[in-house]
Amino acid sequence: MATAGKVIKCKAVVAWEHGKPMSIEEVEVASPKEHEVRVKMVACGVCHSDWTYMNEMVPSRLSQFPVVLGHEGAGVVESVGPGVTKFSPGDKVIPLFVSQCGKCECCLSPKTNLCKQNWASGHQALLPDGTCRITCKGQQIRQFASIGCFSEYAVVPDINLAKIHPDAPLDLVFLLGCGISTGYGAAINCAKVEPGSTCAVFGLGAVGLAAVMGCKAAGAKKIFAIDINPDKFEKARQLGATDCVNPKDHSKPIQEVLIEMSNGGVDFALESVGSTVVMRSALESCRIGWGTCVIIGWTEAQELSLRPNDVLMGRTLKGAYFGGWKSVESVPMLVEEYMKGKLKVDEFVTHRLPMKDINKAFDMLITGKSIRTVITI
Amino acid sequence: MATAGKVIKCKAVVAWEHGKPMSIEEVEVASPKEHEVRVKMVACGVCHSDWTYMNEMVPSRLSQFPVVLGHEGAGVVESVGPGVTKFSPGDKVIPLFVSQCGKCECCLSPKTNLCKQNWASGHQALLPDGTCRITCKGQQIRQFASIGCFSEYAVVPDINLAKIHPDAPLDLVFLLGCGISTGYGAAINCAKVEPGSTCAVFGLGAVGLAAVMGCKAAGAKKIFAIDINPDKFEKARQLGATDCVNPKDHSKPIQEVLIEMSNGGVDFALESVGSTVVMRSALESCRIGWGTCVIIGWTEAQELSLRPNDVLMGRTLKGAYFGGWKSVESVPMLVEEYMKGKLKVDEFVTHRLPMKDINKAFDMLITGKSIRTVITI
Repeated sequence: MATAGKVIKCKAVVAWEHGKPMSIEEVEVASPKEHEVRVKMVACGVCHSDWTYMNEMVPSRLSQFPVVLGHEGAGVVESVGPGVTKFSPGDKVIPLFVSQCGKCECCLSPKTNLCKQNWASGHQALLPDGTCRITCKGQQIRQFASIGCFSEYAVVPDINLAKIHPDAPLDLVFLLGCGISTGYGAAINCAKVEPGSTCAVFGLGAVGLAAVMGCKAAGAKKIFAIDINPDKFEKARQLGATDCVNPKDHSKPIQEVLIEMSNGGVDFALESVGSTVVMRSALESCRIGWGTCVIIGWTEAQELSLRPNDVLMGRTLKGAYFGGWKSVESVPMLVEEYMKGKLKVDEFVTHRLPMKDINKAFDMLITGKSIRTVITI
Repeated sequence: MATAGKVIKCKAVVAWEHGKPMSIEEVEVASPKEHEVRVKMVACGVCHSDWTYMNEMVPSRLSQFPVVLGHEGAGVVESVGPGVTKFSPGDKVIPLFVSQCGKCECCLSPKTNLCKQNWASGHQALLPDGTCRITCKGQQIRQFASIGCFSEYAVVPDINLAKIHPDAPLDLVFLLGCGISTGYGAAINCAKVEPGSTCAVFGLGAVGLAAVMGCKAAGAKKIFAIDINPDKFEKARQLGATDCVNPKDHSKPIQEVLIEMSNGGVDFALESVGSTVVMRSALESCRIGWGTCVIIGWTEAQELSLRPNDVLMGRTLKGAYFGGWKSVESVPMLVEEYMKGKLKVDEFVTHRLPMKDINKAFDMLITGKSIRTVITI
């Protein structure tokens, strides 16, 4: 493309400070360096983890500013840096907040999807070389998880990028870059939900709804969908929930309600809220002997407190990051499952807003008015 | 035997009150009722869980008095009640603090050893019919975990009893009724330690040492044995530890020390101390991606506090109760493994004391002066 090799001036959403609204800025996006790809973004979802980074993490230690957030995007390759062999301009792609180098100890193990190659820099919102490609007003701007998709252009490491089917609708499949894959995979890959089992999903945002869909795909017989916002129940039922439960409708703690309703506790509980109180409820909802609780939600705000005996009695507590999917190889497969009608995606997109309405989009997420708002770029 | 069908007057150790020393009393042990067996006890180990019941649990809610403690015993069948088909007078037996009825949902599942049949009554230190067979000074005396082995005679449910090889040495194999089976099984059955893996065992009492032995049997390449009492290290090495670590020798937290020594964290961590501080260290010692932490130690005194992110990053927290063994079928098998030289037992017995020295035996346990003291009955 005509822009290849040049700095691109474009618009991006910059988060300048912890806890403050973001603003649209004109930024310069440098050319991709070795093993980097510059992507023209088309769409990016507004996810709770962006909000957590902005508002909940300890500034300076765990979240650093200024930064371009956004980690659930899709776009088209604009240009590639030296050494990039798997991508060409025009390829449809999904940036990945978990890399897959294919070579590290973790990539070579079937047990984890947490590639070590770009772990440290990604967690500092930097590219692998410790710098970024975005500048604004002379200042270097970090890129959340090495990708930072709330920008018209983003330079991402080639190990943080999946090439997807050329016919895939980018304004929908972006959701496979985080929310849907995370929830669906948590049920399938991490909880390993079994046919005929009883499940409980706590929190019915995009991740939780995708977990409901994963439980159903795995053959669960009973799926309790739990949220304090009953507006989410209709969609949960569409995706496979058999029983929707609002903790506010009960005087007993939700775990006691679920233990009664499931005759002894659920086989699998999935927590997608990112609340330590809910995590504990999820664990305690699991049946003694073999109940498995999977934490999907992210929080740094509080510690999780639990009774050791609840674990000693045969319960398991696990965590799923990006649904356990090895990112580069799995996302294209998930896109194709969607295109074949095996995976639902359209149902998750409730709102579409332009980049300038980013703060409104986050408000809608936090107040439970949207499932997923897509920022069209 | 001549005593069959009669009340037996004998000696027992009675714990009258929370937190107070126990005393030797003359008690009456009634005949076994339906599906019960009266056992003449020969030996019983002094285990930390007895101490926890006595001193740490909330009296009246979680531990009730007066009670005969002791849950790691071995003896000979004196007489059997109606309906008992699997035991005859003279059989060598090990009473079991976890039942195996073979019929309940849990017994029919390969996922757990926590038989439901006698769960509630066992946890109330009663027999399944809600009463006990021991009386003292006209008062009914409870039996810890339905068995209560610190007595010359004990009546136990037939689903809480394993018939073992007639040549088994009772004054050694009693240890397979709790400590050794619990630690060994936690490594084999619950952690499912893998060949070539790196393990850490926290706490080198009988359970922790047995966990070391389990890690070695499973083919672990590196076994860190951790204790603040270096007197335990020699035995740990005998049983398979490759590296003994005293947290007091380091200024950094033990989890940081272990992460360095293991180049990124251990694959499996086993906690046998029953301290929530140590449980957290054990979890944090596990490597990101797939590290598994198994809680073996029992405590009701405190809650376990952990960072959700430590789980989210691919670690698993599990619990093992009686090492995951289905009790009735496994204990005879473990006894035979010992008799064939595949399992070490003799190494664990450091002291032998008569019943009258029970309080001294507990002091030695708590102050770390013994591995296992056997009370000869």
